[in-house]
Amino acid sequence: MTEELEQIKVALEATLNKRSRKKFRRLFLSLHGYEQSQVFAEFDVMQRKLIYTFLTPEELANVFDDTEEDPVEASKYLAEMPLPYVARLLGEMYTDNVVDILAEMSPIQRRKYLNLLRGDEAKQVRDLIHYEDETAGSLMTTEYIAVTDQQTIGSAMQQVKQEAQDAELITYIYVIDDQGILVGVLSVRDLITHQDDEKIADIMITRVLAVDVNEDQETIAEQVRDYNFVAIPVVNAAEKMVGIITVDDIIDVIDEESAEDYSRLAGVDTESISHNPFQTALKRLPWLITLLFLGMLTATLINHFEGLLSEVSVLAIFISLITGTAGNAGTQSLAVAVRRLATNNHLKIWRLILNEVATGIIIGVITGICVWIMVGLWKQNLLLGGVVGAAMASAIFVANLAGSLIPIGMEKLGVDPAVASGPFISTLSDLTSVLIYFNIAQYFLQMFVN
Amino acid sequence: MTEELEQIKVALEATLNKRSRKKFRRLFLSLHGYEQSQVFAEFDVMQRKLIYTFLTPEELANVFDDTEEDPVEASKYLAEMPLPYVARLLGEMYTDNVVDILAEMSPIQRRKYLNLLRGDEAKQVRDLIHYEDETAGSLMTTEYIAVTDQQTIGSAMQQVKQEAQDAELITYIYVIDDQGILVGVLSVRDLITHQDDEKIADIMITRVLAVDVNEDQETIAEQVRDYNFVAIPVVNAAEKMVGIITVDDIIDVIDEESAEDYSRLAGVDTESISHNPFQTALKRLPWLITLLFLGMLTATLINHFEGLLSEVSVLAIFISLITGTAGNAGTQSLAVAVRRLATNNHLKIWRLILNEVATGIIIGVITGICVWIMVGLWKQNLLLGGVVGAAMASAIFVANLAGSLIPIGMEKLGVDPAVASGPFISTLSDLTSVLIYFNIAQYFLQMFVN
Repeated sequence: MTEELEQIKVALEATLNKRSRKKFRRLFLSLHGYEQSQVFAEFDVMQRKLIYTFLTPEELANVFDDTEEDPVEASKYLAEMPLPYVARLLGEMYTDNVVDILAEMSPIQRRKYLNLLRGDEAKQVRDLIHYEDETAGSLMTTEYIAVTDQQTIGSAMQQVKQEAQDAELITYIYVIDDQGILVGVLSVRDLITHQDDEKIADIMITRVLAVDVNEDQETIAEQVRDYNFVAIPVVNAAEKMVGIITVDDIIDVIDEESAEDYSRLAGVDTESISHNPFQTALKRLPWLITLLFLGMLTATLINHFEGLLSEVSVLAIFISLITGTAGNAGTQSLAVAVRRLATNNHLKIWRLILNEVATGIIIGVITGICVWIMVGLWKQNLLLGGVVGAAMASAIFVANLAGSLIPIGMEKLGVDPAVASGPFISTLSDLTSVLIYFNIAQYFLQMFVN
Repeated sequence: MTEELEQIKVALEATLNKRSRKKFRRLFLSLHGYEQSQVFAEFDVMQRKLIYTFLTPEELANVFDDTEEDPVEASKYLAEMPLPYVARLLGEMYTDNVVDILAEMSPIQRRKYLNLLRGDEAKQVRDLIHYEDETAGSLMTTEYIAVTDQQTIGSAMQQVKQEAQDAELITYIYVIDDQGILVGVLSVRDLITHQDDEKIADIMITRVLAVDVNEDQETIAEQVRDYNFVAIPVVNAAEKMVGIITVDDIIDVIDEESAEDYSRLAGVDTESISHNPFQTALKRLPWLITLLFLGMLTATLINHFEGLLSEVSVLAIFISLITGTAGNAGTQSLAVAVRRLATNNHLKIWRLILNEVATGIIIGVITGICVWIMVGLWKQNLLLGGVVGAAMASAIFVANLAGSLIPIGMEKLGVDPAVASGPFISTLSDLTSVLIYFNIAQYFLQMFVN
């Protein structure tokens, strides 16, 4: 909360303590819906119960429409209200938000609230609640304005005037035929600037982009972003219009998807915040312990070379240098591959792989030469420098290639490539790097020592 | 490009080859602006020059308004057109997009194009071009609708009808006083549903959220997302309204900022795609080579313990296990801290640090015990297991703390905390882990062996 809002909250509390309905309403209703919901979340249960008597359900609907964040909190509030109040509140809210709240409830609770709704409203909610998470159906709302292509501008304008208060967005007016099939779209701008007697069919744009109700949310977000829409219509398999997805929900999708990618790269869910360190630890440990086993594999591999190590103990000095650098290179190529797979649908996979092979060779050779010189000068031993440099070059090449091949392979298997995390790739590259390093060392040292 | 669009492109090329102006126009103008710009980018210079004779500058303005992506490409196109054509094209485009293109040009080129614009248009562009990148000023456009609070709904509606075609967005009508100061806002919905003789001052919302022209784009994006706006007004230091930022530009900002965070976590720019492996390598090498020096520091540290290593060569087996696992824990806590700092403006820093300290202890102890048991059983040596386990626990604790302290420190210094990358934290933790491991090993082994 901003400081200004913090002060308003204190002032609102004062009006609640004084039971001053009028002053509370004047101040609270001057706030934006989002601010109302921020302040509302700070009140305790006694204060909230007072608010239910101060505000009409229609007024409180704004607060609930703009919360979105936490449907569990919202259903807690619902339980505090008298049932007729809830009925009017849910009836006033946008259907997509009602669905978000009800979807989190137990079936018994959900039935209780559905029974409160008017028949048509309950049906809309029931229709929406069955769509799978992260699809168009789960994001869309049914409060849109649709006219038929036979109407005139004047009659459409009349209809918009009547329906404007209920619609979530009136920027686009959708045109359907008598079967309910989406045939066109016009903007409220067209409505305002054209003459009353002009026909909708003559003005509408017929090339209208719509998404299928089962379409994945990430694809939809990309379309809305590319086309600069503020809403996109949703149709079912029969091309009938069933809803719209508004840009505010698209922004939430974009945020959600990028937070997901970020979390996966880090190997931890960065978004769910807990103030309990045991819970925090519990979220991070599974990946760490899983990778510990992979790390133990690397340890057994080094163990296998213990004879070599005890003979040439200087080799141990460069283990972490090689594994660390190769891991860094692998993380880089992993991130690039994940992003390119996510943003480019028609990517030529072979080109990506070939490019990474070439990049890996260049990076490996340059880094290897640097290491050769550094180690050679430091230890006054060009052979040792050469061994470490050659191992470094090969380890980087392998890690770099693995970093792009793993997400590509996952994509081919139909797994979201972002599950390949930075920690995974760097732990895996520890294994390959050690394998490469000791084999090269053994080979060269045998050659020169014997 | 989708397959459908690919086919349309082929059809359009056929009409161009036949010099069939009418057919080209019919097909091309049926496309959405974004599609037009996608197709347009595929044509060669001869085809483009033909298009300039087929389309009016006003029609081509759509293509340019929806490209956005690449101002350098756009200025290449401008150079191909006759100057009077450019003049009309730039005059028709939204000011923010003209600014994006002109900002990338040399001063001489820019002056040439500015001279083509009408006086008032050129002034608007000049005003906008001086705003710093990533601020409200650089994102806003000046094509918005503003009425005064003295007007009636009817007269405002008249004005909207006249200005609708030029405005980038008519969802919000802004209300200014005679000084140009922003005093209110109403929606086109209000305009449509209220009576013609009602006064704007009676209907408008006076609590209007605006951003300062120098405000950072990330903060603005958060506000627009939280408040579910489709546009936000921009005011200067004197509270005068100077422009609006539309939600499509906000989405680009959100994409840009999250790509930036992702790139930084990976230690590589994942967005700039090059098909030349030398260029790709050049982008990744600086971080790798920088971290190589940090890695060499770790190597010299291990070198310092060479005596211990040659005596107890079994110690080398667990170097990569400890450095790897601590690095993974550090990456996790880094990502969590970066995200929490980015999304939570009023965060209590001490609480975050204390939480990470506690989490680090829990994760360290649990992982340490696992390692103790695993190594103890494997090597049939509980002392060795204890040394490795204790080193693991301490190394994880330190890496975990560093992962959150480094971004917090950077935030305090005013540096964007996302510059702390995963590769950096894991390379740094290699150093601390090795330091901890060998010190613990030396201490215990001296104690028991002597």
